[in-house]
Amino acid sequence: MKHLLSVCDMDNVVDLLDLADDYKEGRIREKVLRGKTLAMIFEKSSTRTRVSFEVGAFQMGAQPLYLSASDLQLGRGEPIADTARTLSRYVDGIMIRAISHSDVVELAGEASVPVINGLTDLEHPCQALADMQTIREKLGGFDGRLVFVGDGNNVCHSLLLITATLGMDMDVACPPGYEPDPGIREMAGKIADETGSRIRVIHDPSEAVRGADVVYTDVWVSMGYEDEAEDRLEVFRPYQVNMELMELAAPEAIFMHCLPAVRGQETTAEVIDGPHSVVWDQAENRLHAQKAIMHWLMGDI
Amino acid sequence: MKHLLSVCDMDNVVDLLDLADDYKEGRIREKVLRGKTLAMIFEKSSTRTRVSFEVGAFQMGAQPLYLSASDLQLGRGEPIADTARTLSRYVDGIMIRAISHSDVVELAGEASVPVINGLTDLEHPCQALADMQTIREKLGGFDGRLVFVGDGNNVCHSLLLITATLGMDMDVACPPGYEPDPGIREMAGKIADETGSRIRVIHDPSEAVRGADVVYTDVWVSMGYEDEAEDRLEVFRPYQVNMELMELAAPEAIFMHCLPAVRGQETTAEVIDGPHSVVWDQAENRLHAQKAIMHWLMGDI
Amino acid sequence: MKHLLSVCDMDNVVDLLDLADDYKEGRIREKVLRGKTLAMIFEKSSTRTRVSFEVGAFQMGAQPLYLSASDLQLGRGEPIADTARTLSRYVDGIMIRAISHSDVVELAGEASVPVINGLTDLEHPCQALADMQTIREKLGGFDGRLVFVGDGNNVCHSLLLITATLGMDMDVACPPGYEPDPGIREMAGKIADETGSRIRVIHDPSEAVRGADVVYTDVWVSMGYEDEAEDRLEVFRPYQVNMELMELAAPEAIFMHCLPAVRGQETTAEVIDGPHSVVWDQAENRLHAQKAIMHWLMGDI
Repeated sequence: MKHLLSVCDMDNVVDLLDLADDYKEGRIREKVLRGKTLAMIFEKSSTRTRVSFEVGAFQMGAQPLYLSASDLQLGRGEPIADTARTLSRYVDGIMIRAISHSDVVELAGEASVPVINGLTDLEHPCQALADMQTIREKLGGFDGRLVFVGDGNNVCHSLLLITATLGMDMDVACPPGYEPDPGIREMAGKIADETGSRIRVIHDPSEAVRGADVVYTDVWVSMGYEDEAEDRLEVFRPYQVNMELMELAAPEAIFMHCLPAVRGQETTAEVIDGPHSVVWDQAENRLHAQKAIMHWLMGDI
Repeated sequence: MKHLLSVCDMDNVVDLLDLADDYKEGRIREKVLRGKTLAMIFEKSSTRTRVSFEVGAFQMGAQPLYLSASDLQLGRGEPIADTARTLSRYVDGIMIRAISHSDVVELAGEASVPVINGLTDLEHPCQALADMQTIREKLGGFDGRLVFVGDGNNVCHSLLLITATLGMDMDVACPPGYEPDPGIREMAGKIADETGSRIRVIHDPSEAVRGADVVYTDVWVSMGYEDEAEDRLEVFRPYQVNMELMELAAPEAIFMHCLPAVRGQETTAEVIDGPHSVVWDQAENRLHAQKAIMHWLMGDI
Repeated sequence: MKHLLSVCDMDNVVDLLDLADDYKEGRIREKVLRGKTLAMIFEKSSTRTRVSFEVGAFQMGAQPLYLSASDLQLGRGEPIADTARTLSRYVDGIMIRAISHSDVVELAGEASVPVINGLTDLEHPCQALADMQTIREKLGGFDGRLVFVGDGNNVCHSLLLITATLGMDMDVACPPGYEPDPGIREMAGKIADETGSRIRVIHDPSEAVRGADVVYTDVWVSMGYEDEAEDRLEVFRPYQVNMELMELAAPEAIFMHCLPAVRGQETTAEVIDGPHSVVWDQAENRLHAQKAIMHWLMGDI
């Protein structure tokens, strides 16, 4: 059984990107998920992940079935393995937005239908695929350099893996202590060695952004980290992506953000609502990229 | 982009009523929303609004996508404008039941798909259209006089605007201090001047109901006003629509209520469960009227 | 209007089982619920009931409409009768998982569409039908004896009624004070007298399980009984279905559980994850059995 838990599970990223473009351009009209059901488990709420998956599944002929953690017996302590076995008897695929990556690994271990990681504390592969679709659309390919400014988090992890896979250079500019996970860095490093791309993790945002083709950031205080908010706002202040920082990037550089954004914290209205920003196209591409993922994992093909 | 935020946004109320009748009578079999998605945002829960929109959208070929405020990042403080822009990339229409009318105006301002007001603190245009469908069904037209007894609230506002538009006379009998919004009264007054209908706002329910063709009431303590409950129960007591009051109306008068009702407060079991009551037909017409609205705003026509 | 509130409402259990098998084997391809809507009301959350009904309805062409008690005005105290009348205007069937059986009886009394009991404090007829489908699949028929070990609860009640109807012997082994409801026992007893089957309610699990063909158990602390947890864990301890107890059953005996299970309480991992266990097939049969029920009550046939 194929699953998508990590960017590393994608058989062929370029094929998926081509398929995502096919969906975006309306070139695939056959409903390859007709009559199927995608269970969608959300341990945390989400606008983009939820709506894009529900709409995508429907457009492909499937039934999306939204389950919050409280709807499931998960809330009563049913073992994840039992939920996996039960759902596998009813549905054709499971998308899960979970707090803990290891729960998703456990779910996939017991499921007999494909499991799609819709965001965990470790990775966000669906976002990364949509991001690469957006970059290829805007820049024509992956020759440039992406700079991720901020917290070396799940989004950063999946970007490290997917840029390495595609041979795109990537820098992370983060505060000391907020570096990406060592295991992910090592894996991305190995992939980059093969594809000939370069990865740097540094602490100076100006140095990183200078000449960058893509400047990417994410919120400073993600859901679940509210109690660290005060500290984080202090630590991340020098990492705000504002016009001053953007002016160091290449003239045609694009600004990306996986949303939701907090204007005045990780970025400014001037940037996110300005000419460099491609965040709405990026959000839209979640729909197309995830249709490609569902087609690949769940399609009758 | 056309939206339905207020009764005043309806291009042609009679055309919409005819379309609603067409749907009710099964004369429209083509699924004019096939493959589309209607996002439905609920800041307050609802039985009738939710079920009638979900069923209507499904019957027209669309996917209804129910989003509670807590499902959306709205709960995390994402600006409404960002939610509007994001949803516009995924869905074909947005129905919203909001606490604040100004939020819906803001949403519509940024959305590139039609926005439908499913109830705000200012208006309830979907209810008003269903009510007029019911009145035309029961009384044959709008020659009679509608009396709204109780709180000059959102439902009352939309009734003032739609009766004026259709040239139907309307009285409001409310406690001092609970009159309809002055802006709405002024707008309804201007429309009434053009169509030749008459609007009165008075405080004596008996005087208002005498000879009325339609007697309409709504709950005294709406959601969100629970802390005023004690005061309201006291203030509104003389405005109960009971048999004594109904006997002042025309012999064939109908009793309407947008539901849910609290028997023993704004009305009595004798009235709402009695021969004058048309409340279940009125509730059913939500379905047909809203299909007309979706057909008009979202249909491939 | 036909409803399914109790096992006793099933016109012909064997016909329903045959229909469930037809669905399971893919012999019914016509979508007999095309264009219809099933409202699903949940006063308590549920994995199996919810997912199996949603998937089943979708596969039959219908729209499942999930409503939690808090989504409905039920939370605001709208009378059940009003909810029944309103929903009947919009949907083609109502599935309800309720705390109180009498609420479901009241709902059905006012509804003009079929009402399906998806679990109450008194009965769980959908589970019972799926269980009988499983038993027939595994044992070839109902000649054997089923032993229910544990709390004489809703699941036990519906099993008593359905085994009696099918002429299968059934024993209940429960702690003193946790016997099945006297009214249910009496009714099941009368049915058993007609079909020639035997019912026993005793307190010794070993005696009951000796030679049994089916050993069935359920959680000791159901939702809503959390405050009795400590007492219950004490009282039910001798009723754990472990390997020692299973070894008293017939060599080919099957182990059943309606799930979710708490390993270490009512059963052990060795049993539920072992060779006697048919719990995942049993869970899957919820889907097929409920399709048979919807076909019977809501189908265009």
